[in-house]
Amino acid sequence: MRNIRLILAYDGTRYRGWQRLAGADNTIQGKLEQTISRLLAEPVQVHGSGRTDAGVHALGQVANFHCQSAMPCPQILAGLGQYLPEDIGVLSCQEVHPRFHARLNALSKTYLYRVWNSTEPCVFQRRYVYRMPEALDTAAMEQAAAHLLGKHDFRAFSTGKSGKKSTLRTIYRLEIFREGPEVRFLVQGDGFLYNMVRIMVGTLLEAGLGRKQDIPEIFAAGRREAAGYTVPASGLFLQEVTYP
Amino acid sequence: MRNIRLILAYDGTRYRGWQRLAGADNTIQGKLEQTISRLLAEPVQVHGSGRTDAGVHALGQVANFHCQSAMPCPQILAGLGQYLPEDIGVLSCQEVHPRFHARLNALSKTYLYRVWNSTEPCVFQRRYVYRMPEALDTAAMEQAAAHLLGKHDFRAFSTGKSGKKSTLRTIYRLEIFREGPEVRFLVQGDGFLYNMVRIMVGTLLEAGLGRKQDIPEIFAAGRREAAGYTVPASGLFLQEVTYP
Repeated sequence: MRNIRLILAYDGTRYRGWQRLAGADNTIQGKLEQTISRLLAEPVQVHGSGRTDAGVHALGQVANFHCQSAMPCPQILAGLGQYLPEDIGVLSCQEVHPRFHARLNALSKTYLYRVWNSTEPCVFQRRYVYRMPEALDTAAMEQAAAHLLGKHDFRAFSTGKSGKKSTLRTIYRLEIFREGPEVRFLVQGDGFLYNMVRIMVGTLLEAGLGRKQDIPEIFAAGRREAAGYTVPASGLFLQEVTYP
Repeated sequence: MRNIRLILAYDGTRYRGWQRLAGADNTIQGKLEQTISRLLAEPVQVHGSGRTDAGVHALGQVANFHCQSAMPCPQILAGLGQYLPEDIGVLSCQEVHPRFHARLNALSKTYLYRVWNSTEPCVFQRRYVYRMPEALDTAAMEQAAAHLLGKHDFRAFSTGKSGKKSTLRTIYRLEIFREGPEVRFLVQGDGFLYNMVRIMVGTLLEAGLGRKQDIPEIFAAGRREAAGYTVPASGLFLQEVTYP
């Protein structure tokens, strides 16, 4: 069996997220499996580095699948370019070690969140940003962001059921920068709980609006209500996944 | 009567073009007139610098309308931002001389045409480019473009009925530049015939693909069939209109 790794970009607007749903045609994973299976004339299962939610985009999602087919990678790339819908693009296609697994081997993920922080209209970017025209205090956001760095129990920054699984995660990098009318958040970590990036950004935006956000207190409380709101999916991009 | 000038950006994808059509809701002019009339509580007629066709976008369309309303311009701007659909944006709103007319006073128009000249997917730009992955000979395109500059009878570069109206137009500027995976065409002229920019770009692209395009011969022939094909609307943007 060959093991093929794909790097993917997609516009999540019209999809119900990454994960295949029985009977639903509009998931990224489902669309990929359908298209690859048809191209290679054999059933394949695609493993993503993680799920992205409904409406979330990707600039560099990583996935892999096993196949018997001998079709060369450049031909798979061209075939997928031809048969996938225009809102899913394959940036690279390479044969990798048989034991490579996009989810299990991931070392870190980087997410980008785009806020349109201007009263100007954003006609051409409207599907890819969250519009918030109010003035944001960048210094206050950076101060709060510093407390999110490092290893913490991010239970309060998740809407997942708590269960028994660990909610400890490590944030390696959290940068906030202005680019023209946008404020962008770049977050790298060893993994993210359900809705974690969107709640982190919502909490930082509240700090930027002048509502005091005491991050250590939120960690200590460990309750979802202690943190800020969940920002919309439209501004969120899975930018990069790293591997050993 | 006050005279108000608007500068507009719009995503033309879901519209049947600029010009109001009886019974149709999906034109830019129709949508503007409807929204402004409701906002000012009086019927208004909006004059654009010119029509853009179905699917064509604008970065800086100029329009004007007369009204009795005393509503201050910043309030009109904010109201339109609130009530117009997200794919039509008002960049500026100013009161101007009563005799200003967006179409009659226009001195020049600049159009941008974006070609995605790469085999890479263009997931997020797909509505705003024309995809042509084949290698383009920029020198050949520039050589052909030089012949389009200046005052010519552009009859061959139009699909309009010839009629009695003059088909003489002057091209002031025609630049071709590469920006990452894109080749961009920037054309400024004193006016453009129906489909003229799209046929000019189609003719230049054919030159870039190695099919000889003898521009002086096309002018001399004066027949539509002598020029290149009409490129799709998706890549075309009305970028700027200048006035005295």
